[in-house]
Amino acid sequence: MSKFLSERLSGLKEYIPGEQPKDMQYIKLNTNESPFDPPPEVMQAATQNRAANLRLYPEPDCTELTKALACRYNVDSSNIILGNGSDEILSFCFAAYFDAKSKVIFPDITYGFYKVFGDLYGSDYTEVPLDSGLNIDTADYIGCNKNIVIANPNAPTGIALPLSDIEKIAASNPDNIVVIDEAYVDFGGESCVPLIKKYSNLIVVMTFSKSRSLAGARVGLAIADSQLIADLNKIKYSTNPYNINSMSQQAAAAALSCEQYYTDRIREIIDTRAEFCRGLDRLGFEYLPSSANFVFAKKDGTDGQTLYLKLKEKGILTRHFASPRISDYLRITIGTRRQMETLLSALSEITEDIQ
Amino acid sequence: MSKFLSERLSGLKEYIPGEQPKDMQYIKLNTNESPFDPPPEVMQAATQNRAANLRLYPEPDCTELTKALACRYNVDSSNIILGNGSDEILSFCFAAYFDAKSKVIFPDITYGFYKVFGDLYGSDYTEVPLDSGLNIDTADYIGCNKNIVIANPNAPTGIALPLSDIEKIAASNPDNIVVIDEAYVDFGGESCVPLIKKYSNLIVVMTFSKSRSLAGARVGLAIADSQLIADLNKIKYSTNPYNINSMSQQAAAAALSCEQYYTDRIREIIDTRAEFCRGLDRLGFEYLPSSANFVFAKKDGTDGQTLYLKLKEKGILTRHFASPRISDYLRITIGTRRQMETLLSALSEITEDIQ
Repeated sequence: MSKFLSERLSGLKEYIPGEQPKDMQYIKLNTNESPFDPPPEVMQAATQNRAANLRLYPEPDCTELTKALACRYNVDSSNIILGNGSDEILSFCFAAYFDAKSKVIFPDITYGFYKVFGDLYGSDYTEVPLDSGLNIDTADYIGCNKNIVIANPNAPTGIALPLSDIEKIAASNPDNIVVIDEAYVDFGGESCVPLIKKYSNLIVVMTFSKSRSLAGARVGLAIADSQLIADLNKIKYSTNPYNINSMSQQAAAAALSCEQYYTDRIREIIDTRAEFCRGLDRLGFEYLPSSANFVFAKKDGTDGQTLYLKLKEKGILTRHFASPRISDYLRITIGTRRQMETLLSALSEITEDIQ
Repeated sequence: MSKFLSERLSGLKEYIPGEQPKDMQYIKLNTNESPFDPPPEVMQAATQNRAANLRLYPEPDCTELTKALACRYNVDSSNIILGNGSDEILSFCFAAYFDAKSKVIFPDITYGFYKVFGDLYGSDYTEVPLDSGLNIDTADYIGCNKNIVIANPNAPTGIALPLSDIEKIAASNPDNIVVIDEAYVDFGGESCVPLIKKYSNLIVVMTFSKSRSLAGARVGLAIADSQLIADLNKIKYSTNPYNINSMSQQAAAAALSCEQYYTDRIREIIDTRAEFCRGLDRLGFEYLPSSANFVFAKKDGTDGQTLYLKLKEKGILTRHFASPRISDYLRITIGTRRQMETLLSALSEITEDIQ
C-alpha cells in the first residue's frame, strides 16, 4: 500500500480467489468450475466472423448475445445487462444502490465478495446470521425494509430457497433492491427470472462460469426491470463501456445454441453429486443438501483445515474457509465421476489415518 | 433511471462511445482503431493450449502476460497490473486515489472519460484549459501540488509533450499521483515508462487497443512503482479479480512476440498520416501536429458538424465533438492508404459543394 491510497480504502480487505497452485497437476475441486469443456461450437464461434475482427472495439451493448439471452429467458433485451463475469455485475449493483445512506443485508455465511463490495463502496451493510442448520431464515428478510443480497442456491452451503420465499422477500420490500445471485441455479434451484415482470425491485444475477463451462471467458449478466438495467448501464458506461471482449460475446452466444449439450452435462453433474453424497454417507461424513455444483461436507472429529491440507498433499484441491461456524467444513466442487471416486478414496484413507 | 439509484449518481453523465451504426458498411475512422488485423499468431494463441480451457477461471494475476510485458518494458512483474482495457485501469486509478478529499486536474480538452470517472468517484477535479493553440501548458502542472491525469499524446488533439516535460511534472509533485495515459504513444510520442524507477508517484497507462490492433480483446495495463501497483490490485481484487479472460491473455502475450509485425504497421500508419496531412494541406485544411493515429483537422468557414454528417452520408465515419473551442474540428483516425485517399476525395467534393 502506498501513502497515496485513499484513506477510506486503507483498511479494505480484498477478495481472495481460490488458489491456483502450479507446483503440480491437481484435481481441481476448489472453485466450482465445470469438469466439462464447452462444446466445440463455442470455441469455433469465439474465433470466427466478426469475432476475428480483434482490431475493432467490441459492441458495447453486446447486441447479438443480449438478443439470444432475451429469447432464452423470455424477457426483453432492455431487461438484460452483460458483465465481465457476474462479479462485475454485482459490483455495478453495489455501486448503483448500496451507498453509505442505504442499508443492505446479506447472510453472514455466503459469497465472500458481498462484504468486499460493501467495504469498497462504503455501503451500510449488516450480515444476518444463518440459522443453526446453516439455512437462510426467510423471516429475517421478509418486510425488513432494507436492500437485500441473497445467493440462491447459497454458497458455500449449496442450500436453495424455494421460489415462493424469494417472491415473499421481493414483494414485502418494494422500496428496496433485492439482488438474487443465481450463479448456481441450474444445478437444482428454481430461477426467479419470471418474477422480474412483477417486481420492479428485483435483480437476478447469472453467470456463464458454472453450468455453461465458460469461467475463462468472463461473461455474467443481470436480468431486471428495464429501469434497473438503465441504472446498471449508467455504471457500466461510466467505468468500462466495452466490458466484454468480442471473442467472449461470440462464445457465450454460441453456448446458448447448445442447450441440449449443457442440459446433459448438468444432469451428469447432478447425478455425480448424488453418487458422491452416498459415498460421503459410507464414510460417515455429514453434508448439507446441495442444489449447486458443490457439496459442503464435514466429518465429526476431523478438522477442516487438516482435511484440506491432507487432500492437497494427495493432489486434490478443495476449498476451506477459516471462518467461525464453518471451519470444520470443506466446499467440494463436483468434478467428473472418476475425480469424485478418487476423492472418496483419498478421504477414506485420510480419515482412517486420523482415527 | 429508477427511484432506487444512489442520489449521488443521479446527475452522472456516462461516457458515450463512438457510434457503431449498422445500417451500412462504413469506412470507420471514428474510434482510433488500427486498420490492420493482428498477425495470425495472435488469433491462434487465443485458442490454443491453456486458453482453450475456457471451463476454468483465467489466472487472476495474468502471470505469463505480465512476465512478457515486464521483459518488453524492462521492469519487474511487480510494476505491472493488467486491466480489461485501459478504461478499467483508469477507473482503478480514480477509485484508489481521487476521492472527494484529493484534488485532481486534467486538461479541459482531453479523453472525455476522465471527467466521467471524476463524477462517478466524487473526485474534486478541475479541468485546466489548453492554451490557444490547444496545447497543454506544462507550467499549469509543474509544482501544482495536485494529482494529475494527462494523456500523452493528448486526445483528441494528438499533440505530444516531450519526456522532459513529463519528468518535470512528476518530479515537482512528489506528494501527488501523476497518471500519464500513453494510449497513443507508439505513434510518435516518447514513453515515460523508464521514469517509474525514479518517481514513485508516476503511473503510466497503456493499451493493446491501438498500436497492437487488439481493441476487441480488451487488454490494458499500468506500469508504476510496485506500491502503486499494490494499491491498484487492491481495487482489482475488490471488484473483479478475474478481469481478463483466458483468450485475451494469450492473444496479448502472443502479440508481444510479434514486435516486428507491429513496428512495420506503426511505421505504415505514421507514413500514411504524413501523406494524409499533405492531402489536407492541398485542400486548405488546418490540423494540429499529430503524434497519434488520428489527426484533428478543420477547414475555415466549414462547420465540423456539417462536415461530419456529409462524410457519414458518403459512408465515412469520423468523430465530431460538440464542445466549446473544438466544434469546428473532426478527429479522423488514420486508416489504410486507400481509405485516406477515399476520405480526401470526399472532403474535396464536400468542401467544393459548400463553397
